[in-house]
Amino acid sequence: MIVYGRNVAKEILKNPKKIQNIILQDGFDDKNIISLIEKNNCKVSYKSKREIDRLAEGVHQGIILTIRDYQYYDLKEIINSNSSFVVILDHLEDPHNFGAIIRTCEAAGVDAIIIPKDRQVQINGTVMKTSVGTVDNMKIVQVTNLSSAIEKLQDSGFWIVGTALEDSTDYREIDYTGKIGLVIGNEGSGMSRLVKEKCDFIAKIPMYGTTNSLNASVASGIMIYEVVRNRK
Amino acid sequence: MIVYGRNVAKEILKNPKKIQNIILQDGFDDKNIISLIEKNNCKVSYKSKREIDRLAEGVHQGIILTIRDYQYYDLKEIINSNSSFVVILDHLEDPHNFGAIIRTCEAAGVDAIIIPKDRQVQINGTVMKTSVGTVDNMKIVQVTNLSSAIEKLQDSGFWIVGTALEDSTDYREIDYTGKIGLVIGNEGSGMSRLVKEKCDFIAKIPMYGTTNSLNASVASGIMIYEVVRNRK
Repeated sequence: MIVYGRNVAKEILKNPKKIQNIILQDGFDDKNIISLIEKNNCKVSYKSKREIDRLAEGVHQGIILTIRDYQYYDLKEIINSNSSFVVILDHLEDPHNFGAIIRTCEAAGVDAIIIPKDRQVQINGTVMKTSVGTVDNMKIVQVTNLSSAIEKLQDSGFWIVGTALEDSTDYREIDYTGKIGLVIGNEGSGMSRLVKEKCDFIAKIPMYGTTNSLNASVASGIMIYEVVRNRK
Repeated sequence: MIVYGRNVAKEILKNPKKIQNIILQDGFDDKNIISLIEKNNCKVSYKSKREIDRLAEGVHQGIILTIRDYQYYDLKEIINSNSSFVVILDHLEDPHNFGAIIRTCEAAGVDAIIIPKDRQVQINGTVMKTSVGTVDNMKIVQVTNLSSAIEKLQDSGFWIVGTALEDSTDYREIDYTGKIGLVIGNEGSGMSRLVKEKCDFIAKIPMYGTTNSLNASVASGIMIYEVVRNRK
């Protein structure tokens, strides 16, 4: 996997084992990053701006890293460990949302994130960058079937909380003290029908304007910190 | 100003007075949007995909609108009206963050957003798109000097709450029942020194992982809904 940008590079250099190769732009002069690279004895090559522009898909700030692909976790591991708070992404599309949600989960102490294998943005360079490297400290599970993963969580004592406007309860009135699986729906269409039917609670964030939805990563942040408030 | 994409087009077509011109891609077939355009008697022209790709900077989904520039509000209007909750952006850089914050503010019933004129992303097509058109329902004030705007707010009874990690109070322990001005700092460097010195309270969102910050629009969402919780 290819990632780029100085902030994500600094994060990855804290855990350099996964780095396969680093490409710097000719004349790259970020002393902080260069000293981290030297300290870790990473393999470096230099290329022209033009070549790096061709390799990166976005703003690279003169640095590209090739790193090992993310190793997804197994749902069993999560259930068998002492996990008590997982976030379930129901077919998110936007890598910026996925990255920001990983960052929030890591900050809030969420135990794992569960994503479906298909029709869901996977961990790529943009997700890594938006997560500012926190992806390395987060257990992410990839499942073939979200509904059956939810059933397994319920069988092991998790309460599943979805988010929607209809048939829902004010998010501040739900008891989050048990084991919680929080579902975040797709940016456009929300939760899928099958997933919604499996939820034990449906939470609603009250809105007072003309819009009836929030950005998916913002709604996740509000919900995740509401769960945290009930527990810590 | 040029904006593009189907969701933002639908939002703007609810308030069509500001539309100057609509360009559709040859063969555009979103019946919902076409019927809105016909209902509003908007001026439409058709162009090839190639020409539209050239005009839009991102994913346009076959529709581009030229609309009147946003008309910023005056700080006096906000202070003289019954405003009691404003959000102050201290030099945000990312249009996606700005757009998502506008969307959250509109949903949460924030009275106005205050931004500095310089070194701050202004309202552009990307901001419009990320705000899913809510920018039209939000009063946004542009000021030359953020510190002096904060002083004026304080003189008229606002308490200014900043966000930072040092010298700060848990965000759940602050009383938000009065008139509140919530400051959101820059994505990289946080609040500027002068603005921080003016704050009456500094709030901290607790974090339990290795990262010590959240995405700016996520942190805004958590803080804004914490203020709402204290008031409604």
